[in-house]
Amino acid sequence: MKSISFNLLNESHGARLGKITTPRGNIDTPAFMPVGTAGTVKAMYIDQVKSCGSQIILGNTYHLMIRPGVERVKQAGGLHNFMNCSMPILTDSGGFQVMSLSKISKVTEDGVEFSSHIDGKKFFLTPEESIQVQLDLNSDIVMVFDECPKYSAEKDKIKKSMDLSLRWAERCKKKFGKQESKWLFGITQGGIFPDLRKECLKKLIDIGFDGYALGGLAVGENQSEMFDAVDAVKDILPKDKPHYLMGVGMPQDILGAVKRGIDMFDCVLPTRSGRTGLAFTWNGRVNIRNAKYAKDEDPLDKSIDCPASNSYSKNYLNHLVNSNEILGSMLLTWHNIAFYQDLMKKIRQAIKENKFEEFYKKHFELFNEIN
Amino acid sequence: MKSISFNLLNESHGARLGKITTPRGNIDTPAFMPVGTAGTVKAMYIDQVKSCGSQIILGNTYHLMIRPGVERVKQAGGLHNFMNCSMPILTDSGGFQVMSLSKISKVTEDGVEFSSHIDGKKFFLTPEESIQVQLDLNSDIVMVFDECPKYSAEKDKIKKSMDLSLRWAERCKKKFGKQESKWLFGITQGGIFPDLRKECLKKLIDIGFDGYALGGLAVGENQSEMFDAVDAVKDILPKDKPHYLMGVGMPQDILGAVKRGIDMFDCVLPTRSGRTGLAFTWNGRVNIRNAKYAKDEDPLDKSIDCPASNSYSKNYLNHLVNSNEILGSMLLTWHNIAFYQDLMKKIRQAIKENKFEEFYKKHFELFNEIN
Repeated sequence: MKSISFNLLNESHGARLGKITTPRGNIDTPAFMPVGTAGTVKAMYIDQVKSCGSQIILGNTYHLMIRPGVERVKQAGGLHNFMNCSMPILTDSGGFQVMSLSKISKVTEDGVEFSSHIDGKKFFLTPEESIQVQLDLNSDIVMVFDECPKYSAEKDKIKKSMDLSLRWAERCKKKFGKQESKWLFGITQGGIFPDLRKECLKKLIDIGFDGYALGGLAVGENQSEMFDAVDAVKDILPKDKPHYLMGVGMPQDILGAVKRGIDMFDCVLPTRSGRTGLAFTWNGRVNIRNAKYAKDEDPLDKSIDCPASNSYSKNYLNHLVNSNEILGSMLLTWHNIAFYQDLMKKIRQAIKENKFEEFYKKHFELFNEIN
Repeated sequence: MKSISFNLLNESHGARLGKITTPRGNIDTPAFMPVGTAGTVKAMYIDQVKSCGSQIILGNTYHLMIRPGVERVKQAGGLHNFMNCSMPILTDSGGFQVMSLSKISKVTEDGVEFSSHIDGKKFFLTPEESIQVQLDLNSDIVMVFDECPKYSAEKDKIKKSMDLSLRWAERCKKKFGKQESKWLFGITQGGIFPDLRKECLKKLIDIGFDGYALGGLAVGENQSEMFDAVDAVKDILPKDKPHYLMGVGMPQDILGAVKRGIDMFDCVLPTRSGRTGLAFTWNGRVNIRNAKYAKDEDPLDKSIDCPASNSYSKNYLNHLVNSNEILGSMLLTWHNIAFYQDLMKKIRQAIKENKFEEFYKKHFELFNEIN
């Protein structure tokens, strides 16, 4: 029996409460995974990430391949040791960043040739190589290597790309082999076309994965298109496996996706926004650069159990951010991760108490309006 | 009786062990004060600054006047409240920054007219205004407003400037008046001219201050010139008052100055170096950007009781700093402050045990060579 498993504990109006058990600790779902791009959740100590309630983080294969290179992470004993992270780590496969960041030279049946966005160095990534890199990083949850077409692409191109990703998914599964304490997730593609999404998921289920992700979203489509893509697959996603919506999103996006049975999320929004002066709160977003906060001695959100949220005045934060002080990025990022984890905790509580519909109604419109 | 006081506890080969008692906590001397320029010790949480062993920090009147402005700090209830600092705060008077950073329009008997280095806004700072600003910031140790001439200036100019600073020192004392829980320090000027230094200090003692600082150093003179300036006054510095060497310095500078009876130090070196990839350790300086550290799994300095010093590999730190990750600045700054406070702790221990000469000999040449 595998030492990593998923248990579905409750359902409430489509939302699922679950628990992933791993040798590195448990993950209560729905879960939000802070993004630790290049071996660091930017501007945070890893202990803070954990103490905010995070139980898993995400690492980026693409970024780590480029800097510092997989060898140096391997030499340190894997990504957990390298970055002092005691939590489980999910790694993406590099597929998305190859598309969004690098200069792609060519995509063949075999893999993708691309140049680093940092120094132009050439890499060739195949499904097998992506899995090997993720195993070298000692990732707990490995993602298949897929091609992520742009949002605007036409249906036949999306279909062609999806078929390639499916063939790659099979190769990934084969390369991954049997792993006692690691999972391999398949990724559905198919853009915003419900029939393609369904077809892709069914074929992935035939191959057989430990969890199923929706990829190729959060790339420019609007919220209702994104929800439609989730709706297309929600009834055929295996109930006994985790469902992961990649790269999503705003608090209201997460609420809407949880309602559609999604268990796992990752997004750079809370960390990236923290570095630009944007804070998420239960009363909506706060652009701390705004001059009105110079006169505001209240903290960002008293209700959140985090010093960054409840112990520093907006007057002070406004000063730090407008003066480009590093502490401004540190405090806002910390607060944003604390808010996201507070949101997930309250979502889980609502599902547990069979009150998710009520919770959703109370917050979805509010977040969608003011955000 | 004042609620802030100094007690000399021991002397060992010229070095002094003391304790400053304040309503906000005690300060063991010799003490190093991390610099919190604009209401933040850059890249550190204030709790970390304290847990490293810091017992007092320095705030910059000039920077705070410019951003966020004194009114906003006052509105927050003073600088301690504004930045969540429970430790005592010493504020400099703005004199040094006016000279080194701003564009000075004119210096008159009354004060200095200058333009902000950030936005060109005009300010006029007089001795009285500087004291008022420091009182508004709720500083625990207030510094007199002085003129800081450049290192290269000729003796007659230094003398003229020193006389102006002495007249300003009298005005500062008058403006400061009687304060139950605050101190006012005088600042000796006189450049690297021993006779001027002596004359200045004697006149300051005639006016009468709670402590005596050496200003106008660490502005380009070499180490032996700096020590000569301290030597010039060391025998006439009042034994029952704290002696503060402003803006110094490297670990070896601190060692040499402690040997000459100095009790208090401040310097941006540990924090600024932390942001450029330079770490201070008991084995000398480490430029963490150096490629050799990519293969080094050891931490910066196992002997220092700080996670930044003993729990992150040089391989990881090299990656963070070379990738311009904020966490690189955070960890190196944290480590450097921990090292500086470890140095001060060991200096105090050596004085306590009457072994300062031994300690000095063991470390001074080593620091001076490799640093």
